[in-house]
Amino acid sequence: MSELRFDPTTQKWSIIAPERCKRPSDFKLTSEEIKRRKCPFCPGNESLTPSEIYRIASDSNESGWRTRVVPNKYPALRVEEQVERSAFGVFDTISGVGAHEVIVDTDQHDLALDQYSDQIWIDLFTVFQSRMTDLKKDIRLRYALPIKNVGMAAGASLVHPHSQLVALPEIPPGVKQILHVGREYYVQKERCMYCDVVQQELEDRSRIVYENQDYVALCPYGSSFPFEIRIYPKQHFSDYTLMTQKQYQSLADITGEVFRRLYSALDEPSLNMYIHTVPIANDPLAIAEFQQWMDVSYHWHMVIIPRMGAGIGLEFGAGISVNPVPPEEAAAFLRRDGK
Amino acid sequence: MSELRFDPTTQKWSIIAPERCKRPSDFKLTSEEIKRRKCPFCPGNESLTPSEIYRIASDSNESGWRTRVVPNKYPALRVEEQVERSAFGVFDTISGVGAHEVIVDTDQHDLALDQYSDQIWIDLFTVFQSRMTDLKKDIRLRYALPIKNVGMAAGASLVHPHSQLVALPEIPPGVKQILHVGREYYVQKERCMYCDVVQQELEDRSRIVYENQDYVALCPYGSSFPFEIRIYPKQHFSDYTLMTQKQYQSLADITGEVFRRLYSALDEPSLNMYIHTVPIANDPLAIAEFQQWMDVSYHWHMVIIPRMGAGIGLEFGAGISVNPVPPEEAAAFLRRDGK
Repeated sequence: MSELRFDPTTQKWSIIAPERCKRPSDFKLTSEEIKRRKCPFCPGNESLTPSEIYRIASDSNESGWRTRVVPNKYPALRVEEQVERSAFGVFDTISGVGAHEVIVDTDQHDLALDQYSDQIWIDLFTVFQSRMTDLKKDIRLRYALPIKNVGMAAGASLVHPHSQLVALPEIPPGVKQILHVGREYYVQKERCMYCDVVQQELEDRSRIVYENQDYVALCPYGSSFPFEIRIYPKQHFSDYTLMTQKQYQSLADITGEVFRRLYSALDEPSLNMYIHTVPIANDPLAIAEFQQWMDVSYHWHMVIIPRMGAGIGLEFGAGISVNPVPPEEAAAFLRRDGK
Repeated sequence: MSELRFDPTTQKWSIIAPERCKRPSDFKLTSEEIKRRKCPFCPGNESLTPSEIYRIASDSNESGWRTRVVPNKYPALRVEEQVERSAFGVFDTISGVGAHEVIVDTDQHDLALDQYSDQIWIDLFTVFQSRMTDLKKDIRLRYALPIKNVGMAAGASLVHPHSQLVALPEIPPGVKQILHVGREYYVQKERCMYCDVVQQELEDRSRIVYENQDYVALCPYGSSFPFEIRIYPKQHFSDYTLMTQKQYQSLADITGEVFRRLYSALDEPSLNMYIHTVPIANDPLAIAEFQQWMDVSYHWHMVIIPRMGAGIGLEFGAGISVNPVPPEEAAAFLRRDGK
């Protein structure tokens, strides 16, 4: 059984999840070994995954599904646990309650991100919405985070295209901090901080990668990583799960375009992707602290981080990344290489 | 010229350092290519480094030195710059003022960390002290961070044993946050938070790896990474640079022992190591904010993070690591494998 542990000297939660790794040899998995394994996400192998939570059925293909959602076989958190919050001397512990689901993006085993059809992205974004909306009903949960890891350097242990949804019993400290900062900004200016960022970037243009009617993709001014990209809704929307079907279609358009440009520029990099949206906030503390503010002061967005190198070790010690590629150059490169 | 950029939506500084990488091919350096290069840190090749800042001379060996300090050839920050702090719309910028020095730990090219003599560690810790004491005089600087990256997965691009010292024109936000938390803790309890942690761990014993008269090495209760280790002075000391020569000798003893156990357990892992100490605090803001508190509420320590795997992508999105190895198991393993 996993647990969340809080270290007061770093102000960080970690999930101690012994079930995810039994032996030291688990650390030494090579890409060859991964390729040799029978793929649990391919059509016909459905029995290799825990029982299905959700699917988008298909009429046209053999497998009968376009997208499946299953529990992670080695979950960092489990929905079956009781929430127990306890002190251990100066430390804090929360039992490992949460959800850890895997979304199989498509039935095509070898599809690279730049080959995804718009429909695959629409399916994925709709599945995120649907599962997050469902998990919101669980009052034990406080934050749901859709993530995608591609490539071994980004933590993916299976090749078949998949994503993950992690729901936590605690709002991550970093998200909480930004909610506070966004609230202060709003109290002071009666404007959303993110809207100001988007406005400035749309006027400046030098860090814009691509835009469509609803979204803008840009390399952030303070990019921590080479070719880091964020996708923001141009209009103010705080909650990812409340977007319309048309807006998910538009998100599919810009996401597909961004990955085609990124892959053309960088030769299939390993990468992490996640969506930041408002917390679930159906517990008394979060309601009091955030609920009345978060819709005006938070602005959901997607983050894409290519894993190009290891940094210089300042990330751990200082929380400061050293990025050798200015975002203006990265954006210009991605604009030129696009259609 | 590099610069620090602040992103208000993440509350993070990044260093944009274009000089550190001219071409995309720089990302694709293999360990073979690294091995083929002529080592700039070996005796006889001193002319390949920028001019020497400091050395510990040797009477007995051919090279004439035991340890050298040189400026980083591709610095993330430069001491020659003027400090300029400016707004760029909603963003903030500081010119890339700072120091980025390389310490060549020894003249022996192939020495692994578990083969370091106590004298090499003493030299290194003494050089850190000496250089940090020197950099403290520069009122433009606010934080000095000694770091060591070993192995490509940890960002090391040269094999020859070396460390780095980075001095920043800003206290890293994470360190600032902990200084505030430590101050609140002290105000409330009139005790150092770290002293309480050390006391609890010394009584509990289950996460202790090794201890000597002056220091304790432990796997932290909330370990974010498998086999993460921290070394704390047992007594309260806030400032690394004010330790006595005898205390650096004692630090060399525990550090050597920890690396012998770690390498015996993990087969030469890539790793990052850093020392966290009080900020320089000779600017008016830091003096007002921290100087009168930090000596009672901060407690310097060393952190060692083996790079065993890529995590599951929660690190970026949630700031939460998933660690499959409970620190109690890691510590027990390291205790058994020791002498």
